Amino acid sequence: MDTFSHVPPGFRFHPTDEELVDYYLRKKVASKKIDLDVIKDVDLYKIEPWDLQEKCSIGMEEENDSWYFFSHKDKKYPTGTRTNRATVAGFWKATGRDKPIYTRSCLVGMRKTLVFYMGRAPNGQK
Amino acid sequence: MDTFSHVPPGFRFHPTDEELVDYYLRKKVASKKIDLDVIKDVDLYKIEPWDLQEKCSIGMEEENDSWYFFSHKDKKYPTGTRTNRATVAGFWKATGRDKPIYTRSCLVGMRKTLVFYMGRAPNGQK
Repeated sequence: MDTFSHVPPGFRFHPTDEELVDYYLRKKVASKKIDLDVIKDVDLYKIEPWDLQEKCSIGMEEENDSWYFFSHKDKKYPTGTRTNRATVAGFWKATGRDKPIYTRSCLVGMRKTLVFYMGRAPNGQK
Repeated sequence: MDTFSHVPPGFRFHPTDEELVDYYLRKKVASKKIDLDVIKDVDLYKIEPWDLQEKCSIGMEEENDSWYFFSHKDKKYPTGTRTNRATVAGFWKATGRDKPIYTRSCLVGMRKTLVFYMGRAPNGQK
């Protein structure tokens, strides 16, 4: 497979949920090389939402509407299953219903929507 | 510069007018190699609009909303300046105002909108 250092003019990164999970995330968890370093690694709980744009920039000026990144889940307690989603300034909170992502009618992932609140739960400003 | 046989998953060809004229058309008229054969050559007056999708397909399933191609202008009379825009089944007719295309505040082209009519001018069905 070719190695890409960039893509030709006119191409925009607008992946589908399926491409994100079944191609990019699948390669990531298998530690396989991804052709183009288009999805950055971020610790979502070590940075604030307003830092995302800078951290996730892929050097394409116009890609300003969405940023894509990989981040690990963080546990609230070492032995528990609850997820810690707090940053220094606030916290991310799940909202709405998770959306299943299918590849050729196989469930390959769930898309979860998180909203950021400033402050500490159960208070905090959306 | 790299040679691309394809672009990674998640990229869609959504060029701006400026990219089309100042990159792709500029290379085309200079007979320079274009990295990826993403814009086909078509004689717009030898085919009908409903054949465009097939002729301009670049092998990306989802790129169904727009097709991009290069086509030469055809003259109505060998010695004149008027443009022939007739196909076998109908004709293309300019509509609206031409839109100037700028690159770093230099005018590099005009975008003309054509509408197809079945039949022969001055009649024909839009």
